Amino acid sequence: MKKFTITILGSSAAIPTATRNLSAQLVAYGEQYFLFDCGEGTQMILKQLRIKINKIGHVFISHLHGDHYYGLIGLISTWHLLGRKTAIDVYGPPELQNIIEIQLNASMTTLSYPLIFHSTQSETPRLIADNGRLTVTSLPLKHRIPTTGFLINEKPLPRSIRRAETDRYGVPFIFMEKLRAGEDFVDEDGNTIPNHLLTIEPAPPRSYAYCSDTAWYEPLAKWIQGCSMLYHEATFMNDKAKSAEEKMHSTAAQAAQIASLAGVRKLLLGHFSARYDDLSLLQAEAEEFFNPVVIVEDGETYEIVN
Amino acid sequence: MKKFTITILGSSAAIPTATRNLSAQLVAYGEQYFLFDCGEGTQMILKQLRIKINKIGHVFISHLHGDHYYGLIGLISTWHLLGRKTAIDVYGPPELQNIIEIQLNASMTTLSYPLIFHSTQSETPRLIADNGRLTVTSLPLKHRIPTTGFLINEKPLPRSIRRAETDRYGVPFIFMEKLRAGEDFVDEDGNTIPNHLLTIEPAPPRSYAYCSDTAWYEPLAKWIQGCSMLYHEATFMNDKAKSAEEKMHSTAAQAAQIASLAGVRKLLLGHFSARYDDLSLLQAEAEEFFNPVVIVEDGETYEIVN
Repeated sequence: MKKFTITILGSSAAIPTATRNLSAQLVAYGEQYFLFDCGEGTQMILKQLRIKINKIGHVFISHLHGDHYYGLIGLISTWHLLGRKTAIDVYGPPELQNIIEIQLNASMTTLSYPLIFHSTQSETPRLIADNGRLTVTSLPLKHRIPTTGFLINEKPLPRSIRRAETDRYGVPFIFMEKLRAGEDFVDEDGNTIPNHLLTIEPAPPRSYAYCSDTAWYEPLAKWIQGCSMLYHEATFMNDKAKSAEEKMHSTAAQAAQIASLAGVRKLLLGHFSARYDDLSLLQAEAEEFFNPVVIVEDGETYEIVN
Repeated sequence: MKKFTITILGSSAAIPTATRNLSAQLVAYGEQYFLFDCGEGTQMILKQLRIKINKIGHVFISHLHGDHYYGLIGLISTWHLLGRKTAIDVYGPPELQNIIEIQLNASMTTLSYPLIFHSTQSETPRLIADNGRLTVTSLPLKHRIPTTGFLINEKPLPRSIRRAETDRYGVPFIFMEKLRAGEDFVDEDGNTIPNHLLTIEPAPPRSYAYCSDTAWYEPLAKWIQGCSMLYHEATFMNDKAKSAEEKMHSTAAQAAQIASLAGVRKLLLGHFSARYDDLSLLQAEAEEFFNPVVIVEDGETYEIVN
């Protein structure tokens, strides 16, 4: 089974702090890397963490507040300067394409690799990527400007063949694909051998939802139902519930209530306002509604498990 | 006399390295701060160096290669988020204004302070700023896209009054301004008292030239004649003279020859290609043509003296 992790590259809201960079995280599925948001300085953090930037094939930008994307153009340029050849798929709000293009035009740059831009929209959840192993669905969020979260779903893994059993029942090689997909086997005498005798149940598919930035938004809980791991912004605590509402951000309590309604397995909190020094208070606030809650740290890797 | 310094915020060419950030430097004249170029991550470096960003009043962008300006929009946003009120003057190629505006529009941001954009052009040297104490002149450079260097000139300081002498000769208070400006004094009996008896010669005005990026460009030597300190790019050494020519950058030897032709007092080299580990070789190459030569280091401050 492929290792499925996220690495936090930045978890500060709006402005960087001494210990937290601006929003960005790397999702790794085996050797496939996906970047979610890309605040200023992300390429430097990737370098510090010795993450091979050429393995990144897809970049997803949630919205066009600068703390979530100002580092993208620098990363795009660095790939070019290092002579990258393989394509990059960039997903984001439609204006992002123009923002990238006018900056490349200003420097008279023709990229060394194809950059394929995919415009996201935010009215309903929408399947935006499928690479055979994983799908990515954009999720409308509720923020001051159009914003999407992203849900990555691992596709159901095939069942494993029990060799001794398939030999015993004389299952022909040509039928193995169907066995892996769950079909029962009918032998030459017309006897049905139930699939579960011939195969082993695969691990249930894992999923990860990245939801930053958003106000309290209940429909989200339905869309990420049963998710293995949810990253939800928690810019504020309840002491600043009014600020959260005005700025269309969430409190730690709200993030945990969404996690609870959605029945996710684990909740990561991030996108913290620089006003909070002691984040264990945010954690405690969230834990009144959900468990387990993790306060993410920049540079840390979290495994997505069921 | 006000302290006049530059602090290197970044001195790597094209891509950041483990020890060098992308191009940016802070010029401080007393409490007045000027930023020259602003590569990605500049706001983080300013924070690390505990430089008060609100003292920056003017930003000068040499050209629109990303390593010289991708950090500007983040700094502009951070000033806004921190509630800055005082105006910022931004000087740069005309397209920069649009690049800033479409990014602010995408986030629906109306800045908390006035941003006054001044378009630079690059055919001839041109006075672009004058704050009473200093002037800034843009200098055309020779690069792949329109690029300007910048020359900061301190205005001549007024002469200092020798109180004992002005008392002795009975110079009235009303004449002091003229004395400071260098006029001789004529007393009631018609005797001329030469200015040099009544005042002290001020320190000669200091000047600093920031020249990055450029190929060998001889007219530059004339425009920065006698400058107190020159920062000239030295992306390559002579071993890569052909690359330098193709990419319209300079070698360390060429930078030193410009310094020599211009008769500057001190040469700082920066904007190094990441290929060079041992920069003392660049220094040695330059010192064949000029002395003193300084290989700048990120985070270091250099005083501009005559």
